[in-house]
Amino acid sequence: MHNPFFKNHGPFILSDIIDLSINYSSSPEDLTNSTELIHDVKNLNDASSKDITFFNSIKYKDSAIKTKAYVCITKKEFFGYLPNNCIKISYDNVLLLTAMITSKFYPDSINDDNNHILFNINEKFKDIISGKNTFVGKNVVIGENTKIGHNTIIENNVKIGNNCIIGSNVIIRNSIIENNVNILDSAVVGKKGFGFIPNNSKNFRYPHVGYVHIKKNSEIGCGSTIDRGSLSVTVIGENTYLDNQVHIAHNVKIGNNCMIAGQVGIAGSTILGDNVMIGGQAGISGHLKIGNNVLIGGGSGVIKNIPDNSKVMGYPAKDFKNFIKESKLKWFTVLLLLTLKLKYQKMLV
Amino acid sequence: MHNPFFKNHGPFILSDIIDLSINYSSSPEDLTNSTELIHDVKNLNDASSKDITFFNSIKYKDSAIKTKAYVCITKKEFFGYLPNNCIKISYDNVLLLTAMITSKFYPDSINDDNNHILFNINEKFKDIISGKNTFVGKNVVIGENTKIGHNTIIENNVKIGNNCIIGSNVIIRNSIIENNVNILDSAVVGKKGFGFIPNNSKNFRYPHVGYVHIKKNSEIGCGSTIDRGSLSVTVIGENTYLDNQVHIAHNVKIGNNCMIAGQVGIAGSTILGDNVMIGGQAGISGHLKIGNNVLIGGGSGVIKNIPDNSKVMGYPAKDFKNFIKESKLKWFTVLLLLTLKLKYQKMLV
Amino acid sequence: MHNPFFKNHGPFILSDIIDLSINYSSSPEDLTNSTELIHDVKNLNDASSKDITFFNSIKYKDSAIKTKAYVCITKKEFFGYLPNNCIKISYDNVLLLTAMITSKFYPDSINDDNNHILFNINEKFKDIISGKNTFVGKNVVIGENTKIGHNTIIENNVKIGNNCIIGSNVIIRNSIIENNVNILDSAVVGKKGFGFIPNNSKNFRYPHVGYVHIKKNSEIGCGSTIDRGSLSVTVIGENTYLDNQVHIAHNVKIGNNCMIAGQVGIAGSTILGDNVMIGGQAGISGHLKIGNNVLIGGGSGVIKNIPDNSKVMGYPAKDFKNFIKESKLKWFTVLLLLTLKLKYQKMLV
Repeated sequence: MHNPFFKNHGPFILSDIIDLSINYSSSPEDLTNSTELIHDVKNLNDASSKDITFFNSIKYKDSAIKTKAYVCITKKEFFGYLPNNCIKISYDNVLLLTAMITSKFYPDSINDDNNHILFNINEKFKDIISGKNTFVGKNVVIGENTKIGHNTIIENNVKIGNNCIIGSNVIIRNSIIENNVNILDSAVVGKKGFGFIPNNSKNFRYPHVGYVHIKKNSEIGCGSTIDRGSLSVTVIGENTYLDNQVHIAHNVKIGNNCMIAGQVGIAGSTILGDNVMIGGQAGISGHLKIGNNVLIGGGSGVIKNIPDNSKVMGYPAKDFKNFIKESKLKWFTVLLLLTLKLKYQKMLV
Repeated sequence: MHNPFFKNHGPFILSDIIDLSINYSSSPEDLTNSTELIHDVKNLNDASSKDITFFNSIKYKDSAIKTKAYVCITKKEFFGYLPNNCIKISYDNVLLLTAMITSKFYPDSINDDNNHILFNINEKFKDIISGKNTFVGKNVVIGENTKIGHNTIIENNVKIGNNCIIGSNVIIRNSIIENNVNILDSAVVGKKGFGFIPNNSKNFRYPHVGYVHIKKNSEIGCGSTIDRGSLSVTVIGENTYLDNQVHIAHNVKIGNNCMIAGQVGIAGSTILGDNVMIGGQAGISGHLKIGNNVLIGGGSGVIKNIPDNSKVMGYPAKDFKNFIKESKLKWFTVLLLLTLKLKYQKMLV
Repeated sequence: MHNPFFKNHGPFILSDIIDLSINYSSSPEDLTNSTELIHDVKNLNDASSKDITFFNSIKYKDSAIKTKAYVCITKKEFFGYLPNNCIKISYDNVLLLTAMITSKFYPDSINDDNNHILFNINEKFKDIISGKNTFVGKNVVIGENTKIGHNTIIENNVKIGNNCIIGSNVIIRNSIIENNVNILDSAVVGKKGFGFIPNNSKNFRYPHVGYVHIKKNSEIGCGSTIDRGSLSVTVIGENTYLDNQVHIAHNVKIGNNCMIAGQVGIAGSTILGDNVMIGGQAGISGHLKIGNNVLIGGGSGVIKNIPDNSKVMGYPAKDFKNFIKESKLKWFTVLLLLTLKLKYQKMLV
């Protein structure tokens, strides 16, 4: 991910960002005197040969094998997965060390401190049609024919396309919003995610240097919250509609043409394919892959990956037919469940 | 439903609103040359002999048999349910055609574009006690002794009765609110519902020409969202209390003396009787009928109709006693469950 | 609980606050002529020999035995649990009578009427760094180096410590907030709880004379709602983090170092220990005790007390191992479930 919004305070040499005397390194040479410059902290996939990365869960071993990173923070038992020329640093709490290093590169990304100078939107954008008490921060671009409601705060680092409708009491920061997007009243887009390293008496906040990307023709419901990514991007695909009070955690990626009903929650780093339909109040755990054309029944709790073209329901969510059998549901209920697919249309009647 | 709020751009002749050359009609005559004026789009029940209606689901066959509509959009296999003198138009996607026709009658109801000129509330209503930065739109009436908090936006088409208390950061549009109603902070009342015809690359938004009707002595919790109806009304009955973060979808009708705890969600077009009590986080699917004096346990997922005087719990929700048996709950838990009825009182202790 | 915020309109003599002619009393003497002054309404535990209290559920019998209250409103069958020198008043609806008496002592606590005169925050606090349109009410103290966002309303009776960050569109009233607390955008803290005595045609609102106490180093997520206590305090412990759209009802007490993921709801008067971790969308019924070091899986519905060091999941929530067995989950799912403990850290990846 290219980072369009947060100022990178690097480059640093290794001894600036890690106390090498207390960390075990796989490298034979004395890294304390290394003068190699490290330019950024990135994911295993995105890191270049001038970057530092981290590898914390075996789930990501396929990415580890191919990483180009100069240095990787990891556990000793994962050393074998990483390329030979990658310097391996082992540390008890991989994420804590990664968070500390990221904080050095991006000290402004830890808290959402919104007390920068703000302009009344009409002072800055003469052609924007906006409501009362609408303010904008720094590094904001707004396209043509976009309308913005009352008491809405567009903070720093926001790009909004053409023909968008932004409601009232909305808060947006660190986000790229394409054309023809509707963001309804009281939604909050781009706040830092719920990420921190637990620590008694004072948790260590993980920096969130990512952003939110909402693709064209989408709609975000009233009171919904979409958190920005930590090192990556939170994505809402094209023509994807979210209903009211939906919560999308950091790093989630949702495909195109999805429909997500009210009060659904999706935990961090989960990836959804295209044409996914999710009934009201369903929840999806973090770090999962949901395929294309998946239907998730209302109220379900999804705790494992779901392959393409599946229909699941229940808690934990299972195949539709098994859910019906185990729930001893009668035929008329089955009929009702099978028509769930048409729910969004039927809601109109 | 009489439509008090949206401007009807009709009447139209049939060939203005439907491309008759590509639609199959049951009528023997050539409708292309019909000069009969069609005045409105209405439900099967509400349509007069000058209106157009639609019939999309077999659930509504009893209403179809009795409809007075001049024309009905439906599926070919439903023709037999409709009266002889009703002109039947068949179309693959009944709701899409209905949405397109409704858009012609009510073009302003598709998006909630709130950028009309607004007045500071105290300029318009000298006797209203209001907070700072409170604004009102067009066609707003506010009764005596009603108080309104800070940063609250009363948009167009709102009637508020006497002795109401409206909190801060509230947004209200297209709503009728009777006397002695409390609407707590950050609630959003009257926004368009989550209704659209799914379509790859760009969904077709269904117009929402309905409104929200909140009857006297009711209370709407903090951060709750109540969507307005599509062609019908969303109703909150008398002396019905909603807790925080509740979501009520379009066309839902809730009876009198109901109590709905926090984070409950009710999907579109479901009807609740009187004296219904719903525990926290429960969800109810769309198009259901919940009887009078029904108790729905917290966390339940209701997917079928519930008769009067029932107690249900679970996901899918079933009779209380079966839930207890199948969950192998011990006697002290049963005791706890049975006292759920008193939950609202006990929460006070 | 010492009441720092609401004005006590007492003391009263017994006949001022109870119609003794229609209430049964255990006392042999004629209470109608009693001139003893009653100073306050308090819980069984907190009441002094000059206070009135109430005893409504057998769950609180241990507190009843030890109460020092001068008078207690209760049911006749509970008389035996109360000390001899405590005057016992029996009444059909204990909570209704208690609510009526509390209303006499604290008439201002029934509704959150926020239309007192408010100041722009910069007029009152010259050193506070704040956003646009930020207002404060009466009896507000704000510490050093605390920052406050835009459109935020700090109503009456709020004490905020040093180094706090309060977001935009936040509403706070009747709350004590210690140092280094983050309250994110659109949160509502300190509103009256969802408490009332059901009554046809017009419920009787229970007064909420309590407050919210958020201890140091904590974080409250975006759009979360934390209701103030009725007669007691709602507490968020030190270094406890709440994610977005969490609902905490009145009188709930959460310990230190807890982590509560998105869309969780906790019903009234439940008490959580330290180091409790709750996955997204879980719900906890009212009046429960959750021990220390408890892990509650995402989506669970907890309806009974949970002892220290437990791991529970499901609806109703049961021991982790039983949940896995009964759900016929495969080994890879078990692995996923067991790593739930690390969820908060893993969400960062």
